[in-house]
Amino acid sequence: MIDPIILKGFRDSMPKEEMPKRKITETLEKGFQSYGFVPIDTPVLEYSSVLLGKGGGETDKQVFHFEDNGGREVAMRFDLTVPFARFMAAHSSELALPFKRYHINKVWRGEKPQKGRYREFIQCDFDIVGVDNTQADYEILSMMHHSFHLLGIERYSFHISHRGMFNTFLEKLGVMEFSTEILRAVDKLMKIGREEVKKILVDIIHDEGKAEEVLSYITPDENAGFLERLEKLEALCGGGCPGSIRLREIYSLLKATEISDAFILDPSITRGLDYYTGIVYETFLTDLPTLGSVCSGGRYNNLASLYTKENLPGVGSSIGLDRLVAGLEELKSPLLANNSSADVMIIYRPEELEKAEKAARVFRDKGIRTDVYLSPEHKSKRIFDYADKNSIPYSLSFKENAVSLKCHKTRETKEYSDVFDAVEGIKI
Amino acid sequence: MIDPIILKGFRDSMPKEEMPKRKITETLEKGFQSYGFVPIDTPVLEYSSVLLGKGGGETDKQVFHFEDNGGREVAMRFDLTVPFARFMAAHSSELALPFKRYHINKVWRGEKPQKGRYREFIQCDFDIVGVDNTQADYEILSMMHHSFHLLGIERYSFHISHRGMFNTFLEKLGVMEFSTEILRAVDKLMKIGREEVKKILVDIIHDEGKAEEVLSYITPDENAGFLERLEKLEALCGGGCPGSIRLREIYSLLKATEISDAFILDPSITRGLDYYTGIVYETFLTDLPTLGSVCSGGRYNNLASLYTKENLPGVGSSIGLDRLVAGLEELKSPLLANNSSADVMIIYRPEELEKAEKAARVFRDKGIRTDVYLSPEHKSKRIFDYADKNSIPYSLSFKENAVSLKCHKTRETKEYSDVFDAVEGIKI
Repeated sequence: MIDPIILKGFRDSMPKEEMPKRKITETLEKGFQSYGFVPIDTPVLEYSSVLLGKGGGETDKQVFHFEDNGGREVAMRFDLTVPFARFMAAHSSELALPFKRYHINKVWRGEKPQKGRYREFIQCDFDIVGVDNTQADYEILSMMHHSFHLLGIERYSFHISHRGMFNTFLEKLGVMEFSTEILRAVDKLMKIGREEVKKILVDIIHDEGKAEEVLSYITPDENAGFLERLEKLEALCGGGCPGSIRLREIYSLLKATEISDAFILDPSITRGLDYYTGIVYETFLTDLPTLGSVCSGGRYNNLASLYTKENLPGVGSSIGLDRLVAGLEELKSPLLANNSSADVMIIYRPEELEKAEKAARVFRDKGIRTDVYLSPEHKSKRIFDYADKNSIPYSLSFKENAVSLKCHKTRETKEYSDVFDAVEGIKI
Repeated sequence: MIDPIILKGFRDSMPKEEMPKRKITETLEKGFQSYGFVPIDTPVLEYSSVLLGKGGGETDKQVFHFEDNGGREVAMRFDLTVPFARFMAAHSSELALPFKRYHINKVWRGEKPQKGRYREFIQCDFDIVGVDNTQADYEILSMMHHSFHLLGIERYSFHISHRGMFNTFLEKLGVMEFSTEILRAVDKLMKIGREEVKKILVDIIHDEGKAEEVLSYITPDENAGFLERLEKLEALCGGGCPGSIRLREIYSLLKATEISDAFILDPSITRGLDYYTGIVYETFLTDLPTLGSVCSGGRYNNLASLYTKENLPGVGSSIGLDRLVAGLEELKSPLLANNSSADVMIIYRPEELEKAEKAARVFRDKGIRTDVYLSPEHKSKRIFDYADKNSIPYSLSFKENAVSLKCHKTRETKEYSDVFDAVEGIKI
């Protein structure tokens, strides 16, 4: 006998986990599609040299990679960004640019498993590639707003900032040479607090006054609105710059489409990666402040420079599905309220099987999910345990010249002259 | 620069491939859910010893397996049956039996890539586990019928037979000891023809008369119906047996629910695997006779005997999604008719961007997928190339006090006083 165990950091997805996950991805997809985004997929396995770049280096340990039976060095994708860059380089001539795609699928990382961290998890990425303008930035943000609305979340906010504008500021301050280290330090603000960040900044810049100025830049006035904050940042940058102009234009579109309230100009958002060059953003659920960002991203200059000379600017986001699912469950999202495997269960006596299957056809044709209990038991405890475990709200049984529909929640039973009439008794 | 190539036998899924694939799986899921089936997922990577059994042996070469960074021997799943057996052994106490699950996801095999054969492909499995009765067999068949109906396929047939009944026949013939070899030979009938099968059978049984009797069993009378064929088989078995009784009961339910016409008793269907013990079946699209079976399966005695002492009988099927997608495309299924990325594209002059985004909100709120073209061009060729490549059927532009809606197919343009009015001009 083999022990049916699974690897550490991996999970089975039981129906009660898989159903909400699917409802959430279906809802997100609906949101993306309403903006004209299309789905793609890429292979789980690729050449290591393609996924990891020539060097490989430190990330290697986090990547599942091996030599296949043909002697090729292959790796399992560890995110959806690198395969997308490779995809765009390979197919840009077949696609009509700008290209708006989403990709929802699993990725793998050999990280140390810990609470909420797994070695196999689902990511959801969406990007607009091939254009660098205000409209594309706005569309990504607007689509995020629309999608979170569709998910039935009541209170959420998008914290947005501009990497280019931050660079303008660093240049004016004369510390541009340390930009990468400063970005990483600032990115830790939420985690380690102002004082610790200041220490690191002083270590980097060797100038306490300048460190203070950086802290001043990234600390907005609590009570100031989007435009007020923007004016303060412009002043610190020595006047308007392309980044601040872009932010102003985006804000004007958000305002025109009446969704600006959810967008907060937050200069402490920098995103750790060098990759970003324009707007950057993170998304927080107001009622779950400790959950962390559930959707992050930004604008980049050049998606696929590793693979092609073609310049492919873009803007995009990534949702970590595990965290979003956990958040929605904690918020008791109405989207996840119904976890039933079927709307109605039909129970029957041995001689009623044909009747039961005919009734099931009637229900199914009306769009009612119908489970004919798989043995001719009529009133046993087992049968109601089954309905309970599967959260099936109704059961139907047969009387001499009628059918009897029971609502499991209210325990009320109602009789109907036939199955067709019973259809209206089932409230989905 | 790294060449953006992918591994042999692997594929990118472009939007024009990914969209139909998703429509098909969504439709299948709808069919499964209407029968009370629930989704699960399992890890892509598992312990090699769990996936391959202790021995491993010949299949090993077809399986992607390696030692991970922690020194564990791991393998990528090569089907959805073995992980499901492991899953049931691990979780049967948490689940309410009978358990009806579906699982649609990728599997990997290191087979030699050839036309229509890939190393990464999607399988769709569905099973009823924990019960062995007529109703469960019927429900699987009925659900298959319902799902193919939902896919918009007009003509399909399910070829069904009974492994237990075939064994009764082999026993009566006194050749039961060769059953495995005989099954494999019969399974090749469609591929290599009657004469070749006969040669193999004679080699196995060393008795031409008995080989002829096997051929007679597996060759139904062209013009005979289900029950007539069943009677002939019963006679060859020496009378009714549990298998023939089960088939008769299933047929009676199919008849009662008015779907029996699609079911053909075909004793040449044996399925090569030892695994099956009851009904076995394959599914053919009538208008694509050379495509092969698009959905196959049967009843088994014991799903998870490798992992648990608990007896888990079941019945289930597997759909190879690639073949089904190819079939539906060849049949020009109406399900796949609409491959547009959006229902309408909005085009605008530079000063009209806010207007355009406001209009998009109106459309999206009405459920109309809306693509605001991502630059302020108004009449260029590029913009209509984009609409064409994305199969977008309508475009909207602005006039002084009106909006103009163009249908790309008819080339007709119609004016509306505002965007709200234009909604009704868009036929999805």
